[in-house]
Amino acid sequence: MNPNLTTDRPTFVTHLECSLTGERYEADQLHGLSRAGRPLLVRYDLPSIRAVAPRAMIAARPTDLWRWRELLPVRRTSDIVSLGEIETPLVPIPKSGGPNVLVKDEGRLPTGSFKARGLVMAVAMAKALGIKKIAMPTNGNAGAALAAYATRCGIETIVFCPDDTPEINVREIAAQGARVYRVNGLIDDCGAIVGKGAAEGLWFDFSTLKEPYRIEGKKTMGLELAAQFGWKLPQAIFYPTGGGTGLIGMWKAFAEMEALGWIGSERPKMFAIQSSGCAPIVRAFEAGEEHAERWEDAHTVAAGIRVPKAVGDFLILRAVRESGGRAMAVGDPAILQAVEDAALKDGLLICPEGGATLAAYREALRLGLVDEDESAVLFNCATGLKYPMADASKTLDRFAEIDLAVL
Amino acid sequence: MNPNLTTDRPTFVTHLECSLTGERYEADQLHGLSRAGRPLLVRYDLPSIRAVAPRAMIAARPTDLWRWRELLPVRRTSDIVSLGEIETPLVPIPKSGGPNVLVKDEGRLPTGSFKARGLVMAVAMAKALGIKKIAMPTNGNAGAALAAYATRCGIETIVFCPDDTPEINVREIAAQGARVYRVNGLIDDCGAIVGKGAAEGLWFDFSTLKEPYRIEGKKTMGLELAAQFGWKLPQAIFYPTGGGTGLIGMWKAFAEMEALGWIGSERPKMFAIQSSGCAPIVRAFEAGEEHAERWEDAHTVAAGIRVPKAVGDFLILRAVRESGGRAMAVGDPAILQAVEDAALKDGLLICPEGGATLAAYREALRLGLVDEDESAVLFNCATGLKYPMADASKTLDRFAEIDLAVL
Ligand SMILES: Cc1ncc(COP(=O)(O)O)c(C=O)c1O
Ligand SMILES: Cc1ncc(COP(=O)(O)O)c(C=O)c1O
Repeated sequence: MNPNLTTDRPTFVTHLECSLTGERYEADQLHGLSRAGRPLLVRYDLPSIRAVAPRAMIAARPTDLWRWRELLPVRRTSDIVSLGEIETPLVPIPKSGGPNVLVKDEGRLPTGSFKARGLVMAVAMAKALGIKKIAMPTNGNAGAALAAYATRCGIETIVFCPDDTPEINVREIAAQGARVYRVNGLIDDCGAIVGKGAAEGLWFDFSTLKEPYRIEGKKTMGLELAAQFGWKLPQAIFYPTGGGTGLIGMWKAFAEMEALGWIGSERPKMFAIQSSGCAPIVRAFEAGEEHAERWEDAHTVAAGIRVPKAVGDFLILRAVRESGGRAMAVGDPAILQAVEDAALKDGLLICPEGGATLAAYREALRLGLVDEDESAVLFNCATGLKYPMADASKTLDRFAEIDLAVL
Repeated sequence: MNPNLTTDRPTFVTHLECSLTGERYEADQLHGLSRAGRPLLVRYDLPSIRAVAPRAMIAARPTDLWRWRELLPVRRTSDIVSLGEIETPLVPIPKSGGPNVLVKDEGRLPTGSFKARGLVMAVAMAKALGIKKIAMPTNGNAGAALAAYATRCGIETIVFCPDDTPEINVREIAAQGARVYRVNGLIDDCGAIVGKGAAEGLWFDFSTLKEPYRIEGKKTMGLELAAQFGWKLPQAIFYPTGGGTGLIGMWKAFAEMEALGWIGSERPKMFAIQSSGCAPIVRAFEAGEEHAERWEDAHTVAAGIRVPKAVGDFLILRAVRESGGRAMAVGDPAILQAVEDAALKDGLLICPEGGATLAAYREALRLGLVDEDESAVLFNCATGLKYPMADASKTLDRFAEIDLAVL
C-alpha cells in the first residue's frame, strides 16, 4: 500500500570508511568497528543520486523514513523491515519554550522512541547480511526497538540493561520477544558482556556505533528536518547526547544534502545536551579535547543520556564545534522542571531527555547563545509515557452528597 | 510551517441534527444532547464542498488530521489546537493476524490514543464557543487527551475516572494540567457526577457523544482509511466499541465521502467488538434490539471498552447491521493472548482493546464471517505502553564469570 516499502529503488552505497582514519572497507559485508576501533561511516555515490533523485521527487513520496531510500544502505526491497516509521511532527511549545521553539516529537515512532530509526535500519541490514542472533547493551529504548524489529524478521536477540532500568522498558523488551538480562552496572558494563560474547562468536554486537547502520537510520532526523523546514534548516538544534548517534547522523545528513544541492552551506548550531551527573562530552568540549574520558559514578534521571563513555566522542565534538554550537550540562532539577512545564503549560508530555533539551534551551537563552527570534528544534526522543509521573489524584465517593462547587 | 494549521480554508457546516428525530439545531452555538436526549450530528453543505474540494486537492496536503478542514466544524483557523495529529500508519501483522490484516496504530497520536482525534476537535470547538471549564468522565485515555488539548488553550478541566483506572492514565491526566478525581464506581457513575455539575452550571459536560464534535474528530479515521486505501475501503473493520464514537464517526465519514463522489457505495463490514465481561451492544445486536440495556457488573481487562451503557447505542447497531457486519464479544483470556501474540510474533505491542479486535478477527475467520483474502483493518486504539506487561527479565552479576553460551 505504501510504495516506499514495496517499490524497488536504486541504492548508491559505494563503500564504508573509518571515521577516524578514512580507511576504506567493502560494502555488503559484515562489519563492526574499524581496525582503529572507531565507527564506520557509509559512503554513497552522491553525484549519481544527484542525477536521479531530485529533492522534489522525494518530497512527493509518502513521508515515512523509507522515502529516503536512495540515501539509505538497504539494497533489496525485500530486506526492508517496518512497523510504520512515520515522519515525526514538530510541536510548538510557546509557553514553556518560546515563540520559535519546536519539539520534534520522536515518541511517535514504533516502540515509542527515536531508537526505532537507528534500529530499523540496522536490523534490515542484519537481515540482508544473514545475521541470526544479535546482542545489545541498552538503557531501555534501544533494546525495545531492537527487540521489535528483530522479532519481526525472525532474528534472535539478547539484551543487557543496567539493573535500575525502569520496569516498563524491561517488560517492553521482553514482550517483544527478546531475552533480557539486568546487570548490576551501567551501560558500558552491559556493553562489556556483549563484547565478550561477540568475541566468542555467540552473537553479533549491536552496541551504539559498533555496527555501521544505526547512524544511517538516525540521520533521517536531519533529512526530515530539512524537508519539514522547506529545505532550510532550523538555526539551532538541541540534542540529548548519550552515544550521540543522532547528532552524528544529522551532521552527516546535512553534508550529504549539501553535496546533493538540496540545501546550502548554512548549518544549525548543534547543542549536545548532557546531564550534569554524566557529562563526559561537556567536560571534553570545555577542555578543548578531541576525545572524552569515561565519566565515573554517572547518575541522572535521564537514563537515555547516562552514557559514561561514547565511542563516537570525537565525532560529536567535531560536529558541535564546526557548527558553532556547544556541549552543555543541565541538572536533574532543571530537567524535571522542564518536563513539568511542557506538560502543564503546553499540554505536551516529554521524556526526561527531552526535558534536558528544554532546560538547556532556557539556559542557552539566558547565556545569549541563542536568541528568541531564532528557530530552535528540541529533540523529545521518547514518549513521556515511559517515565514515572507524580500521582495528583483525589478520591471521591460516588454515593456521597458531594458539593461539586468546591472541587 | 504546516499549512493545514495556518491557512484559512472555507468551512461548510450548515446545522446540527438530532440523530434520532432529525430535529434541526443551529450551528455555532453551545449544544449538548438533543431535546430527545440523543447525540447531535453535524451537517455540511456537501454539494459546495464537492465543488471546491476535490479529493486530489486534499490528498496533496500534509497528511495530518487538519487536512480534512472542509469536512470539519472549526471555522476560524485561530481556533485550531494541535499537538501534531499525524496520519496513523497501517502495520501488517502477517504472523499473528494474517496476510491481509492491517493494524491501524492509533497509539501514535498525541497522548498515545485515538481519543486525541475526538478531543482535539471538541476542544477547538469549545475554544471557538468560549467555554472556560470542562468536566468529563473517562476510563483513562479520553481524559488524557482532553487535559492536553484544554491545557494547551487555557481551558480548565476536571476529570472523573473509576477508582481502578491504571495509575499511568491518572498520572498522565494530572501531569497535563487537569484536576483528577477517582470515583468508587464505573464510567457511568463518573458521568452522573459530571452531569450533576453541568446541571448546576459549574462546567460544560464533555461526556462521549454529549457534545457534538468528538464524532467529527473521530470520523477522520474513516477519511484517512479511504485515502490510505486509494479511495477504496478495506473489506472489514474491527473496532473496539465502548461509547462507539469512532464507529459512528467512520460510518458518517463514509456517507459524506460517497455524497462527495470520493468513494463508491461499497462499505466495509463493520465489526463492533466488546469484551464478554461488558457486552451490551452484542446482547442487543443478537436480540435484534434497536437500543441496548445497561450491562450490570461490567469487568474486563480492556478498560477502554468497559462502557455499560452507550448513549449512541442505536447508531452503533444501525451501522453494524447496515454494513452486514456483526457485534462480537471476546473473553479476557483471548484478548491477552492476542496482545501477546502480536508482540511476540510481529513485534507490535498493542493495547488490550486492540487485542480484542485481533481476538475477534480470529473468531470471525473461524466462523467464516471474514475470509483470509479479504482486507481487514483492526483498530489498535492506544499505545500498548499504557498497559501492564509481564516481567520476564533475569539478573546477571557483571563481576561473575558468566558462561555466556548458556544465556
Ligand atoms: C530517550 C533517549 N534520549 C536520548 C538518548 C541518547 O541518544 P544517542 O545515543 O543518540 O545520543 C537515548 C539513548 O538511549 C534515549 O533513550
Ligand atoms: C483504548 C481504547 N479503546 C477503545 C475505546 C472505546 O472507544 P469508543 O468510545 O469510540 O467506542 C476506548 C475508550 O475509552 C479506549 O480508550
